Amino acid sequence: MKRIASRDNALFKSLRKLAQHGQARRNAGMSLLEGVHLCEAYLQWQGLPRQALFDTRRLEGERASAEVRALREQVPQDLQVWLDGNLIDDLEQVQAGQGVVFVIDTPAPPMPERVTESCVLLDRIQDPGNVGSILRTCAAAGVRRVFLSEETAFAWSPKVLRSGQGAHFSLAIHERVDLGALLERLAVPLAATTLDDAVDLYQVPLPRQAAWVFGNEGQGVRADLQAAAAWRVRIPQEPAAESLNVAAAAAVCLFEQRRRYLAD
Amino acid sequence: MKRIASRDNALFKSLRKLAQHGQARRNAGMSLLEGVHLCEAYLQWQGLPRQALFDTRRLEGERASAEVRALREQVPQDLQVWLDGNLIDDLEQVQAGQGVVFVIDTPAPPMPERVTESCVLLDRIQDPGNVGSILRTCAAAGVRRVFLSEETAFAWSPKVLRSGQGAHFSLAIHERVDLGALLERLAVPLAATTLDDAVDLYQVPLPRQAAWVFGNEGQGVRADLQAAAAWRVRIPQEPAAESLNVAAAAAVCLFEQRRRYLAD
Repeated sequence: MKRIASRDNALFKSLRKLAQHGQARRNAGMSLLEGVHLCEAYLQWQGLPRQALFDTRRLEGERASAEVRALREQVPQDLQVWLDGNLIDDLEQVQAGQGVVFVIDTPAPPMPERVTESCVLLDRIQDPGNVGSILRTCAAAGVRRVFLSEETAFAWSPKVLRSGQGAHFSLAIHERVDLGALLERLAVPLAATTLDDAVDLYQVPLPRQAAWVFGNEGQGVRADLQAAAAWRVRIPQEPAAESLNVAAAAAVCLFEQRRRYLAD
Repeated sequence: MKRIASRDNALFKSLRKLAQHGQARRNAGMSLLEGVHLCEAYLQWQGLPRQALFDTRRLEGERASAEVRALREQVPQDLQVWLDGNLIDDLEQVQAGQGVVFVIDTPAPPMPERVTESCVLLDRIQDPGNVGSILRTCAAAGVRRVFLSEETAFAWSPKVLRSGQGAHFSLAIHERVDLGALLERLAVPLAATTLDDAVDLYQVPLPRQAAWVFGNEGQGVRADLQAAAAWRVRIPQEPAAESLNVAAAAAVCLFEQRRRYLAD
């Protein structure tokens, strides 16, 4: 176990750089997980982190937390780094965090040659909360693979991780994907949500396996992907209402597909 | 039309106070709507604002915006306030906003004696993005009335307004409601989403009119409301997965109810 008491410590400086700069994390191929829930989920789905950082005050003394102590016991000593004083504050994005941060290798699953099962494509979805919510919906609906376009929020950013609540670890997440080029690899039909020239979701003959594409909050799914879709699907809503938020629309579509095959 | 050129102007000072302090807006019974889309939606659903604030630079000269000019033409002169220089920056929460802000009376619909149509109850939902997304889902699903508990994010805050995308204006939104006391006024059955001791959403005999309660992001629906529910409903998901985000769960439930009666 390492213990750090000073901001001048070299290891601490490198951790702070990772915590504060998305580009540094990307260059290093590493991500940071904050809080008990995400770290627990990582242990459950993926195994041990590269390093586990603990606020010493949450392990010992008056402010010790039973949850954080229980988490520490699942991590071998040589992966533990204890941070004294308020050093952890420099590493947590959440104010008054829980005092535990895992450093992990960002999962980078290989691109499949052929996609033969249900998957989700995210076309320039920019709000981190939306991306995290959709990842969570995918995991709950049984969709195991997600492709994110270049301009979609970075899945392993702190906000998307927080919103995803651990869903990341049960999914294969492919980032910065050229969705146009991906179409050739899809062995399942493509369904796009759109408001124009579309079939009612509840009328469309959804197969058990499909690729769903959900699009940018303002502009929707890009035209070439809409054109390539086997189905253009519309969620039937009140005539004068605003369209659904994209994460809500994804939940409605993926669970409608799930509903149809649950009895099988 | 009023035109303001200085931060020392008394009207500007009072507007800045409203913009920067939620408590000031609540005390005054007023809210601020930012951006073309929200202001357009207000004009469409509710009518004229109390005042319409415009960034002069978006109305005249090189940086003028056709959208903002078109909006201005819908507002009588005597309700317009033009703000010179960068004064508007003090009033917009969004960085680099669109240069239009409406000051409105916060709608405060009277509490119905009896609730005889579908409605939604929000029990301590804290994330503004979730509250806004649920309001949007309600409007799209045809639910017209929403009750927010004391600890739920304030519906007329800038973040919830932004996330709601104008859904607010087609709904009756009741805030700071004692949900326990509300139960006596419900003439429609109560459905609560929960993971324990619950019936599969797709098996439960949902009526056309129901009251849905959705609960806190971490703790779910409060125990007394669960106990009072005619149905405790569970969205059937992958066994090991995290539960859905609450706004995604609300979308799945409300659109499942809508699906069943669409053909009628």
